[in-house]
Amino acid sequence: MQLLRRSCVVLGGGGFLGINLCRHLSASGYSVRAFGHQGLFPTALTNIDFRPGDFSDRTAVANALQGSEIAFHLVHSSVPYSSNLDIAAEIRENLIPSLAFLDLACSAGVKRVVFLSSGGTIYGRSKQIPTPETAPTDPITAYGISKLAIEKYIALYQLNYGLEYRILRVANPFGAYQIPIKRQGLIAEIISRAMNSEAVNIWGDGTVVRDFVFVDDVSTALEIAAVDSGDERIFNIGSGVGHSVRDVLRAIENSLRLKLNIIWKGERAVDVPISTLSIRRAQEMLGWSPKTSFESGIEQTISWWRDNAKIIKHAMSTPARMKTER
Amino acid sequence: MQLLRRSCVVLGGGGFLGINLCRHLSASGYSVRAFGHQGLFPTALTNIDFRPGDFSDRTAVANALQGSEIAFHLVHSSVPYSSNLDIAAEIRENLIPSLAFLDLACSAGVKRVVFLSSGGTIYGRSKQIPTPETAPTDPITAYGISKLAIEKYIALYQLNYGLEYRILRVANPFGAYQIPIKRQGLIAEIISRAMNSEAVNIWGDGTVVRDFVFVDDVSTALEIAAVDSGDERIFNIGSGVGHSVRDVLRAIENSLRLKLNIIWKGERAVDVPISTLSIRRAQEMLGWSPKTSFESGIEQTISWWRDNAKIIKHAMSTPARMKTER
Repeated sequence: MQLLRRSCVVLGGGGFLGINLCRHLSASGYSVRAFGHQGLFPTALTNIDFRPGDFSDRTAVANALQGSEIAFHLVHSSVPYSSNLDIAAEIRENLIPSLAFLDLACSAGVKRVVFLSSGGTIYGRSKQIPTPETAPTDPITAYGISKLAIEKYIALYQLNYGLEYRILRVANPFGAYQIPIKRQGLIAEIISRAMNSEAVNIWGDGTVVRDFVFVDDVSTALEIAAVDSGDERIFNIGSGVGHSVRDVLRAIENSLRLKLNIIWKGERAVDVPISTLSIRRAQEMLGWSPKTSFESGIEQTISWWRDNAKIIKHAMSTPARMKTER
Repeated sequence: MQLLRRSCVVLGGGGFLGINLCRHLSASGYSVRAFGHQGLFPTALTNIDFRPGDFSDRTAVANALQGSEIAFHLVHSSVPYSSNLDIAAEIRENLIPSLAFLDLACSAGVKRVVFLSSGGTIYGRSKQIPTPETAPTDPITAYGISKLAIEKYIALYQLNYGLEYRILRVANPFGAYQIPIKRQGLIAEIISRAMNSEAVNIWGDGTVVRDFVFVDDVSTALEIAAVDSGDERIFNIGSGVGHSVRDVLRAIENSLRLKLNIIWKGERAVDVPISTLSIRRAQEMLGWSPKTSFESGIEQTISWWRDNAKIIKHAMSTPARMKTER
C-alpha cells in the first residue's frame, strides 16, 4: 500500500528561501512542485517539478496550483530598500498578482496558503523590542506596506471563502543559496566580499541590530505552518535575539580567521535602529524554536560558500535574468 | 490690507461629505476649490470653484491641486458592502490613484493632506468597544483594506517627503446631501422610504449597533485637522455613542410622527455586530467634540429632506452618472 504524499506548490521556488524550502519539503516526504523564475541555482532543484513562469501570469499560476493542497507564497518582486522608489510597481507586481493568486487558489481547491511576510519591515519603528505579533504595524517602506496589505487580503479570503492560511513574519533569514543581489542579505554580502578579498561596505556605524534567523529554521517553520491547526494564524519567525552589524562582522572574521577591510558609509533612511522579533507565539503555539545558533549558522553558511565556490561564482556573474524571489 | 485666505482643495467635493465640507469651509472663510464628479447636487456648490474630473486622471488632479495648501482626500469609488465583489477594482480605482495623488501633492507644494478614512471598517470585528485608534486594524472588507493601505502610504510620504497629514477615521456620518444610492447611508435610506410611504428593508434583526455622527460635526473635525499641530495624526471621529438600527427606526418614527412599515431581511456577512469609536483622542488632542445629539441630527436631516423635496427627487431619479464619493 502506498501512502498518499501531501502535495504542495512553492511559489517563488527559485529564490533563496524557495530553494531551501523545496529541498526541505522534498526531504520530508512531500510531493513538491515549484513555480517561478528558475533562479540562479537551477541544479539545486533537479529533483523538483519546476514550473517556470511569472507570478503575474494568471494562466501559469493557475496551472501551477492544480492538484496542490498547500500553496506557499514566497514571491516578492522588490526588496525593502528600493521599494520606495516605485510604489506603483509594488502594487502592480505584488499586490495585484497576490490577489489573483488567492482567486486562483480558491478555484483550484487549494486547502491552505502559507504566506511569507516580513518580520523585519511590517512593524516599522516598533516601540516594543522584541516585537510581538500584536504590535502596531506601521511599515516605513512600500515593501512592508505590500506585505501588510497582502496579509489583510489573505485574511479576507479566509473569512469570505474559507481558504485556510498561516502567515509567517520572518526576520532576516540567512544561509545557503542567498547571494548578494539587489543589496539584499547582509551576511551573504559580507561573506561574498570577504571570500573575494574585497572591501566590505557597511551602511551606518554598525550598531544597527537585526534578528538573523538561519534558513533551515525558517524552512521548518514553514513546514509546520502548512499543517498547524491552532487558533493563531500569524507568527513571527526569528531567532528572538538581536545581533548588531558589528556582531555579524566579528562572527564572519572569526569563522574565516581573517580581518575584514571595512568601509563605513552613511546611514540609510530606511534602516530602523533595532529590529528583533518576539517568537514566543511560534514557540508556544507551533512548538517551533530556532535550532541553529547564530555562530553555527554563520559557520554553515561559510561552508556552503566554500563547497560551492564554482556554482556561486557562475550565479553571481549571471546577468539578472529573473526577478528577485526570496 | 487684505487677509490672505487659506486655500484648500476638496477631492471628492461633489459627494455627500464633500458638499458639506466645501460649504462649511467656504462659510469659515477658506478659499475652497472642489474636484471630482459634479455629483447629484450641483446647485449646492454654486459658490465653489468646482473642477470636474476623475480621480484617476493625473492631469486633472494635478491641475486641481495647483496653489492649494491643504488637500482633503474624500474620494472612494466603492462602498464597503460591494467592495469584496471586485477587490482588483478597489486597488485600481482607489489605491493606485491615491498614490498618484500623493506624488502630485508633493510636486504641487501641498503642505498637508487630510484623508477621510473609515472608522466603521478599518478595525473589523474589534474586541475593544468603543474602539480606540490603537486597536488592531483587521478589516473584513476590501474597502477597509484599501483605506488602511492608503493610510500607510500617506504616513510613508510624510516620512520620505515631509508631506504633513492628518487622518480621520470617521464613523457612520449622516445628514444633508446624503441620499441612498448603492446601499450606503442607513438613515438616508430609511428617511427616503418613509417620506415616500414605502416599506423599509432592514438587514439583520435591528440589534446591529453603529456610531452615527452628524455631518456638521464631521466637517468641523476636518477643518480642525487641516490646521492641527499636535503630535497625533490619526483620529477617530464619531459620536462616541452606539445606536442600534432599532434606535434609528424609533428616532425617525418619532420625528416623522408615523409608524414605519418594516421588512426584516437576513444578516449580511459584512455586518459587524457592534461598531462604536472611542473619540477621546480627538477630544483631548484636537479639542473637538460632536455638538449634535443623535435626535437633533435626525431632526435636522428630516428638515433638509422636507425643505429640498424637489431637488432630492430630481437627484434620486438621475441615472448614476458619476461614481460615489462620500
